[in-house]
Amino acid sequence: MTTLSPTPRSTLNRKKDRAATDRQALYDVLDEGLVCHLGLVLNGSPVVLPTGYGRDGDTLYFHGSTGAGNLRAAATGIDVCITVTLLDAIVYARSLNNHSMNYRSAVVHGRARLVEDAEEKMHGLRVVTDHLAPGSWEHAREVNAKEFASVAVLSLGLDEASVKARAGGPGEEPEDLDSQHVWAGVVPVRTTFGAPVPADYVPAGSPVPAHVSRGRDR
Amino acid sequence: MTTLSPTPRSTLNRKKDRAATDRQALYDVLDEGLVCHLGLVLNGSPVVLPTGYGRDGDTLYFHGSTGAGNLRAAATGIDVCITVTLLDAIVYARSLNNHSMNYRSAVVHGRARLVEDAEEKMHGLRVVTDHLAPGSWEHAREVNAKEFASVAVLSLGLDEASVKARAGGPGEEPEDLDSQHVWAGVVPVRTTFGAPVPADYVPAGSPVPAHVSRGRDR
Repeated sequence: MTTLSPTPRSTLNRKKDRAATDRQALYDVLDEGLVCHLGLVLNGSPVVLPTGYGRDGDTLYFHGSTGAGNLRAAATGIDVCITVTLLDAIVYARSLNNHSMNYRSAVVHGRARLVEDAEEKMHGLRVVTDHLAPGSWEHAREVNAKEFASVAVLSLGLDEASVKARAGGPGEEPEDLDSQHVWAGVVPVRTTFGAPVPADYVPAGSPVPAHVSRGRDR
Repeated sequence: MTTLSPTPRSTLNRKKDRAATDRQALYDVLDEGLVCHLGLVLNGSPVVLPTGYGRDGDTLYFHGSTGAGNLRAAATGIDVCITVTLLDAIVYARSLNNHSMNYRSAVVHGRARLVEDAEEKMHGLRVVTDHLAPGSWEHAREVNAKEFASVAVLSLGLDEASVKARAGGPGEEPEDLDSQHVWAGVVPVRTTFGAPVPADYVPAGSPVPAHVSRGRDR
């Protein structure tokens, strides 16, 4: 077990039993999620935006148009917070107060860095693509110079990160354990992928490449 | 069509075609989501945390333990940002640069208010419960005085909110339309609910109540 960065900001103050201090747990949440929520402060107010991302070792990469104001702000080296949440179940307890959710979430604090080195920038684009659409990097048309210039890639280190999770069945008060007229348990929540739908300009009968049809089983 | 609060903070600066100015679209995203991401500024830094919530008309309610520092901070009337994101599909284009996601997201800015009136606080708890676990409010053991005192309920008005969405097939550059060796289309992403799993203290053969087994079809 590797302890995750115990700075005040990333140290959980409550429900410490839900803090998984295993670095692998952090990687697992970040690798399973598809969308992160990027938080930053603009004009004194918090802004939270859904963003694509990818992980390479202890670095998160995310990207967007160079024209996006929020991304431009993040690129100036201000503090950001990136959170990835996986919802696993709805928890029904015998008391309303003990209703809950099973989930895993990763919270990463730090200062994002604008990736300016061309080689690392292309690598960052690949990391984000491999996360969203594994196999596409080899299959689709590569990024040209104009496209490369129009996109901003940012990186954020995983030095200051925490993972929190709830799993298992409902917690109950002792007084509720005999209330057998009230159902208790969990309803699993899953993210599933439907059958690929070709674009209307794809010739009928074109095979769906393996990286698309089975690429989401991870 | 009702225009959503066109303040500078909630006016989209980019991809204005993705801004749905229909208030119903805002409600739909908030009602379909299960977890929101609550952003606030603590000690000058942004913090983004997954949180349960519910909507009643033009008010969001969310709650947590009175001991939770982030919730205590939000209750002091500081600016918060609540974002709900629904991921609908992964979009495969013929070029890497046009890979994308179909999604709907709602972003709400404002100052959260600690609900102190007992009647409204109980109502807020009901709204949050009805959102997470419809039917449980009538089925499970009610909140007792001690539990009621231990929970903080906050409200946030939907006065300043925006919705952004992407739908449909990939966008392509003209130069890529004839590249028929590259597959293009979408892979739908869905949130699904598994079969209810009873807690181990529920007697074998106990029926699963209708609000649990079919409550997630909405």
